[in-house]
Amino acid sequence: MKEVKIEEAWKKKYPEQVSLAVTISKDGKPDIIALGWVMPTSFNPPMVAISVGKTRYTHKLLSEVPEFVLCFPSERQKDAMIFCGTHSGKDYDKFKETGLKPVKAKYVKPPLIEGSVAAFECKVVATLDTGDHTIFVGEILTAYISETEEKRIYNFGNYFKSISND
Amino acid sequence: MKEVKIEEAWKKKYPEQVSLAVTISKDGKPDIIALGWVMPTSFNPPMVAISVGKTRYTHKLLSEVPEFVLCFPSERQKDAMIFCGTHSGKDYDKFKETGLKPVKAKYVKPPLIEGSVAAFECKVVATLDTGDHTIFVGEILTAYISETEEKRIYNFGNYFKSISND
Repeated sequence: MKEVKIEEAWKKKYPEQVSLAVTISKDGKPDIIALGWVMPTSFNPPMVAISVGKTRYTHKLLSEVPEFVLCFPSERQKDAMIFCGTHSGKDYDKFKETGLKPVKAKYVKPPLIEGSVAAFECKVVATLDTGDHTIFVGEILTAYISETEEKRIYNFGNYFKSISND
Repeated sequence: MKEVKIEEAWKKKYPEQVSLAVTISKDGKPDIIALGWVMPTSFNPPMVAISVGKTRYTHKLLSEVPEFVLCFPSERQKDAMIFCGTHSGKDYDKFKETGLKPVKAKYVKPPLIEGSVAAFECKVVATLDTGDHTIFVGEILTAYISETEEKRIYNFGNYFKSISND
């Protein structure tokens, strides 16, 4: 093994799955962030952990309204996902700008995104400070899949595409 | 979107990356666990989070010696990775059984695994109880890549393989 800078070794993580997290402000304006740092963290009760940068607008929203909907974006949502990952909800209404369609959730205030490969309604049950990010742990209250067959998007480092299951 | 059981929606997470975490007992016996639930969680300082089931032997070892080496297994380590994911370190010496070759780490007691796509020496700096798992957050002290070109393994749900970057 050859010792290298940590950033160089992290490049070996690709392809990395991409998720979208939908959050909402106190006054009811939803926002969408693109996230690569996501992992399941319990079967029973079902939980998922997401890591959000402390300077992100999503971090502020999650502190105000501790609920989120985690969505796996589909290949056909690629451009919308890239927009969400490169613009701040402070400046843009991301549903309006991307054309992504919100769908009312059952238990939480942020909406689902229509056409996601899968979506999970989550209530934040714990947080952990980790360097320049915070881990938000969501208990999953219910889940959805797309009615149509959709392929999940992966980040290959400098481009995004789905992966064949064959 | 169609509401389904949470387990059914989680199946849409595949392909999922696979990692190996090397831990060590108080009396110096190393062990290896296969993990899917891993995410980076800070750039500065560099940190990674791993989620480990509370009943796992690795959970006990991490409580005794809070250090681990996170490795991305290569395609040619597939059989060894499957062995590590299906046997407990309580019963087996996994380096001996799999033929994986340990390499002395620089800052932590658990060894690296020779031929990993990448490896990260980590010291546990925080933990968080999450349902039936615990999140262990490791600060990354240094990192390595393989001297040869290796491909990372992914879990496709019922089989494991590498993914082409083309």
